[in-house]
Amino acid sequence: MTQASIITIGDELLIGQVIDTNSAWMAQELNKAGIRVVRRVAVGDVWDEIWTALDEEQKYAGIILITGGLGPTADDITKPLLCKYFGGKMIVDEGAKQNVLNIFTKLNRPIIDRNLKQAEVPDVCTVLQNKRGTAPGMLFNKDGKVFVSLPGVPHEMKGLMTDDVIPALVNEFKFPTIIHNTLLTAGVGESFLAELIKDFEEALPAQIKLAYLPNYGMVRLRLTATGFNADETEKEINQLFEKLKALVADYLVTDKDEPMENVVGKLLMAKGKTMCTAESCTGGYIAHLLTSIIGSSKFYNGSVVSYSYEAKEDLLQVDKTTLETKGAVSEEVVLQMARGALKHLKSEYVIAVSGIMGPDGGTTDKPAGTVWIAVGNAENIQAQKLYFRFDRARNIQLTAMNALNLLRKFILAQG
Amino acid sequence: MTQASIITIGDELLIGQVIDTNSAWMAQELNKAGIRVVRRVAVGDVWDEIWTALDEEQKYAGIILITGGLGPTADDITKPLLCKYFGGKMIVDEGAKQNVLNIFTKLNRPIIDRNLKQAEVPDVCTVLQNKRGTAPGMLFNKDGKVFVSLPGVPHEMKGLMTDDVIPALVNEFKFPTIIHNTLLTAGVGESFLAELIKDFEEALPAQIKLAYLPNYGMVRLRLTATGFNADETEKEINQLFEKLKALVADYLVTDKDEPMENVVGKLLMAKGKTMCTAESCTGGYIAHLLTSIIGSSKFYNGSVVSYSYEAKEDLLQVDKTTLETKGAVSEEVVLQMARGALKHLKSEYVIAVSGIMGPDGGTTDKPAGTVWIAVGNAENIQAQKLYFRFDRARNIQLTAMNALNLLRKFILAQG
Repeated sequence: MTQASIITIGDELLIGQVIDTNSAWMAQELNKAGIRVVRRVAVGDVWDEIWTALDEEQKYAGIILITGGLGPTADDITKPLLCKYFGGKMIVDEGAKQNVLNIFTKLNRPIIDRNLKQAEVPDVCTVLQNKRGTAPGMLFNKDGKVFVSLPGVPHEMKGLMTDDVIPALVNEFKFPTIIHNTLLTAGVGESFLAELIKDFEEALPAQIKLAYLPNYGMVRLRLTATGFNADETEKEINQLFEKLKALVADYLVTDKDEPMENVVGKLLMAKGKTMCTAESCTGGYIAHLLTSIIGSSKFYNGSVVSYSYEAKEDLLQVDKTTLETKGAVSEEVVLQMARGALKHLKSEYVIAVSGIMGPDGGTTDKPAGTVWIAVGNAENIQAQKLYFRFDRARNIQLTAMNALNLLRKFILAQG
Repeated sequence: MTQASIITIGDELLIGQVIDTNSAWMAQELNKAGIRVVRRVAVGDVWDEIWTALDEEQKYAGIILITGGLGPTADDITKPLLCKYFGGKMIVDEGAKQNVLNIFTKLNRPIIDRNLKQAEVPDVCTVLQNKRGTAPGMLFNKDGKVFVSLPGVPHEMKGLMTDDVIPALVNEFKFPTIIHNTLLTAGVGESFLAELIKDFEEALPAQIKLAYLPNYGMVRLRLTATGFNADETEKEINQLFEKLKALVADYLVTDKDEPMENVVGKLLMAKGKTMCTAESCTGGYIAHLLTSIIGSSKFYNGSVVSYSYEAKEDLLQVDKTTLETKGAVSEEVVLQMARGALKHLKSEYVIAVSGIMGPDGGTTDKPAGTVWIAVGNAENIQAQKLYFRFDRARNIQLTAMNALNLLRKFILAQG
């Protein structure tokens, strides 16, 4: 069974200046095509380290995917290295050259030598033309192993993977079926879940694996099945997944691998209802999550991000006296924010949040991490106080996730 | 010179379900302490693969940091493996046991066996007590190499790194000084920049490296110096960095490694001014970026996320006829949005955006990716039309970055 390894190249990865999102995306796509990723390695822009990684990774995998190190500037050494590694010499690829010329003509920019150099490739590779940028992809065959080099710019890499690399790999190898079924739970800890499904887990057959993925106070459970008979594999995992769903039914948010905001969006769309938000401490993050969903204008009307007292008064008609006597982080204020948002943003449902995300701004009564969340509709708005004890970014994320989950439960309780 | 390798463990990393942010953070902290990270490897929850990674990575590094695989549930095999790898046997650590008991007492939750098992460690390790969770860190010494195993939960890992691991490593080894100086440019392509600073780059001494880091249509340039004399190293890189800044002065946004939103925030605070936003297509993302900054309430008053027509009319007084005749994505509407926001959010400066982020919603006149951005103050608001041709997430990010950069330039032009 042919497995893959991903090598990402770039000093920025090793000093932590850039978070590697490319290899996560690549791993997902490879998995969908039945290709198991067995290792991921990041190395710097250093000749010997790249060379060693090429030597090493082919011990573990039949397919080696390489990203990064192909830009037009001088910190890139990957292309000459690949040329030497596979014993070729550099030539100009006419297709790649035409591509560079086309891109610069379209942008109406002058071409410099450095740009044209992008069209040079080792003569021992199959060129994968890059429709989205100037650096072509390159596919090498060596001793029955396939090496593919791709640019590090995410949308260029993604385009080449989808259009060229995955089809070429599927064509060359025979892969098993890999199926992942994932569900999301909220309101229950990892250890408690593990106890709840202990017997189920122990009885799992060898070809099916269970993983716990805790995040933002929620836990995802993932079943993974591998097999060469696609129908049987699917049937087996589906049966087990239904069992698992029944076991965790009290905490189940969704039986798909999707984020909380999508669950809320789909619920609203199924009911033909809309929602809005009034955000103080989350500062637009809930709005951002919801509007990241394609087609979200169908169920989401907008948000008032009322960071200042004045914004709460002017745009949400929060009472000045309430603000002064109870403070912005209070049950009364968050309820008034919710009512104000419902009125102005003309929606059926609302989320309002007000809190102190830290590290500054806490008091003895209301330490950093204190947050009031209100969810509801015109008839009924419910407020709840929560307390998080993490850093600012995580407190914002946890507040958003909890607020969305509270609204989800409120909508479901409406029947 | 002792170098480090980071091994991250978890199937979720190899199927791309989780993006590895831990190792980027770890690399940053190690770098600050003068420890160069030479490789990062991700492997699955598979006994042989973890074992092999331990064998391999000590060939390249003297310090091997391992995260993940220490949770309370059964998909975790790391701890028994480490016990066997380093030739120990499992014992209960009294400090770790007390920690588990304390945490559960504080949470007022019943303790189950699975939780207490977290207090078991190999008797050949130094236990690093985890103040933030139940899984302790473990430090092993073998053949002059140091191995450290840390939980994968980010805030637990970070706490242990800062409190225990970095001090222990600095105490054990002698590290060189590593200094990074990074600047951010906007409005210029990578190739053009490379031409502009070609002579500078070619004249760099061997111990100083230059890297180009393009992102969101901007390019960061990073100089890295390594040396054993801290003062000399700093003096040398600072002189070269000043030269570099002068060469790219026309495009320079900041000479620090900080995001665009921080530059805008600092500029406003230095002037004692405030800003607000009116966001349609970015859906609260600009607000989220600004409110992620600690202390942002000092310069940011809030946003109207006007996703629906009604929200634009009600909260920003955008004229209904203008909306109907010109459409929401038009110069007229974005100017009215800016004025409405300035009025209600009582700020000196404003950003307003309205566009089509795709993939749906485009027309022949206004294809997906079309966006109008307005920036200004009470006296003067300037609108500009831009066009992006990427996916929804990237179009939103590019719109936000461009809008913030336009406001930055507007504020600077005020003198």
